[in-house]
Amino acid sequence: MKLGILGGGQLARMLALAAYPLNIQCAFLDPAKDACAGPLGKFINAPYDDENGLNQLAQWADQIAFEFESVPASILKSLASQVPVFPGHKALLITQDRYEEKQFFQNLGVDTAAFVAVNTLDDLRKAVLSLGRPSILKSRRLGYDGKGQAFIDEHSDLAQAFESIGKVPSILEGYIKFDREVSIIAVRAENGDTKFYPLVENIHRHGILHTSFVLENDPQQQQAENMVRKLMDNLDYVGVIVLELFQVGDQLLANEYAPRVHNSGHWSIEGAVTSQFENHIRAVCGKPLGDTGMTVPSAMINIIGSLPDCNEVLKIPGAHLHLYNKQAREGRKLGHVTVCAKTDSLLRQHVDKIMPLARIIPPAAEKQD
Amino acid sequence: MKLGILGGGQLARMLALAAYPLNIQCAFLDPAKDACAGPLGKFINAPYDDENGLNQLAQWADQIAFEFESVPASILKSLASQVPVFPGHKALLITQDRYEEKQFFQNLGVDTAAFVAVNTLDDLRKAVLSLGRPSILKSRRLGYDGKGQAFIDEHSDLAQAFESIGKVPSILEGYIKFDREVSIIAVRAENGDTKFYPLVENIHRHGILHTSFVLENDPQQQQAENMVRKLMDNLDYVGVIVLELFQVGDQLLANEYAPRVHNSGHWSIEGAVTSQFENHIRAVCGKPLGDTGMTVPSAMINIIGSLPDCNEVLKIPGAHLHLYNKQAREGRKLGHVTVCAKTDSLLRQHVDKIMPLARIIPPAAEKQD
Repeated sequence: MKLGILGGGQLARMLALAAYPLNIQCAFLDPAKDACAGPLGKFINAPYDDENGLNQLAQWADQIAFEFESVPASILKSLASQVPVFPGHKALLITQDRYEEKQFFQNLGVDTAAFVAVNTLDDLRKAVLSLGRPSILKSRRLGYDGKGQAFIDEHSDLAQAFESIGKVPSILEGYIKFDREVSIIAVRAENGDTKFYPLVENIHRHGILHTSFVLENDPQQQQAENMVRKLMDNLDYVGVIVLELFQVGDQLLANEYAPRVHNSGHWSIEGAVTSQFENHIRAVCGKPLGDTGMTVPSAMINIIGSLPDCNEVLKIPGAHLHLYNKQAREGRKLGHVTVCAKTDSLLRQHVDKIMPLARIIPPAAEKQD
Repeated sequence: MKLGILGGGQLARMLALAAYPLNIQCAFLDPAKDACAGPLGKFINAPYDDENGLNQLAQWADQIAFEFESVPASILKSLASQVPVFPGHKALLITQDRYEEKQFFQNLGVDTAAFVAVNTLDDLRKAVLSLGRPSILKSRRLGYDGKGQAFIDEHSDLAQAFESIGKVPSILEGYIKFDREVSIIAVRAENGDTKFYPLVENIHRHGILHTSFVLENDPQQQQAENMVRKLMDNLDYVGVIVLELFQVGDQLLANEYAPRVHNSGHWSIEGAVTSQFENHIRAVCGKPLGDTGMTVPSAMINIIGSLPDCNEVLKIPGAHLHLYNKQAREGRKLGHVTVCAKTDSLLRQHVDKIMPLARIIPPAAEKQD
């Protein structure tokens, strides 16, 4: 079977590594010449809206997938007329607009922070009166690395805040003082079969995911599964999906979802019976889903901005290094380390050894942090 | 780092899958146009003694390895003058001659079956008088799939037996009525650091490895480690090595070694903390060795001659499918299935489910079996 993937970054790279053992060949379409998945299959170096490149991919592939959600949804729709595309473009379309996404959650009875659409400065003034301060103004269309967001506190000038995000159609969200951030990764097959990975607690630094700890038998597991199940069933979803959640007390609030494999699931390559990458491939290519259970206590630490001393990382028991072969750049995800151990306390010990090796170089705008 | 591999079969393919996460690019030189590792890196389609192809590989690579021991040792030696080659050509040279190999074992105090060199029919007559019947006549140079061997029992005509293996320089080995066949896989770094995988019990069918069960805390583990350690230290070995052993009572006898990753270690991709493929890469590329411990009870079943119903295999809990993308042919290894389970009894149950799916099509010469 031949799988065409829109995007040739690290997610595509890890999808390909999971695909080969199942006899699935991969091709990648990516505008970057040095896309890091390139050497692992057929590489089509073209912009995402390049008709020629897209046709080449569609003619080669038996099946199309994508590795990130900024691909124009219209392109997926047009590709889908030539070759099956999973997950479908609807899942992509909704998540590309923060307001649509929040409304989608609300319509399904999936709790979120309070939110109001904002199109004008006047809308913003009313919205802040309604949701109070602090609150967060976000552009509706996808931002990147915290761009397109303005935090509104007691001292904020609303005109300035609206200006700072470019006066674009936006959404104001009530500020949530969460106890922790968690995510649930699930996978659904075309026949409706569904499996869930254990909840993961995520720790962000400089607005970028830094560490994920897998939570086995967490009291919120069932609640999270019910929430993501509603999304998948409504979308008639096929593939891996992630739902990012805030936990307040014992309640979970949906923040956003991504219709793809996700950084907070990278631990599953070594820590789960079947990795998120293999399960995405299995679902998209019509194969039975694999067991999503955790094999041993696991955690994941991102390598951001600069490479650690890799030999020192490899010396740590149960540490698995995953480098993406990307040029180092401030704030860029260059790889990750999975840590697995027989017990939770051993896991903590090994994570503590890696932390000082994995020095973060944050995005330029946040360097003063 | 760039690793050039002589050979582009399934071992090279699995080496490449282990190399990418460590940021190691791979190239393969193989005479077969459809070598199954080809799509996973730079592919040089040339005979093993093609000077142009070898130069291309040597110029591209920072490091050279090989995936099988039929590569002419002289070629490794000549490559080594251009770029480091691990394991070294001495380990290859010895294993290419069964008599040299047995003598090597003997000189190191590693026990084997009794053996005598045979160059003429007269030698053979004397050897059979000395070792008795049954015994086994084998050509000194590498055979394949049991070719180049003649079993000598009470009724055998010695002239006919010598004729059947082509009257080539040979070795007569005393017949061992073993209790079981086991193998030990070990890995040694350039600095002398050494690690051992748990012993594996191997079951052959039609002269081809069919099933491997990992033996944790086996009473023979230390004995096997001592034997393979002698080999590695004498050879100043770098990389993964396998030593195949017969067990008689509580004694192990060395049968043969291979200076490479080995089919009886394929379980380690999922069943060990660090797979044999990753550890071979780590050793050859000068990185610290990884933990060789088994994570959960594991077994491996080869797919030989024809593909099973893959979806049925994938439905079995803890079953991991590894297909090599090779054309089906009688007696050909097309893939393997690793099975992992939380307990030994669960493992047996899952293996029993896979057995009827993995129907063997033996080599043509043995089809009547």
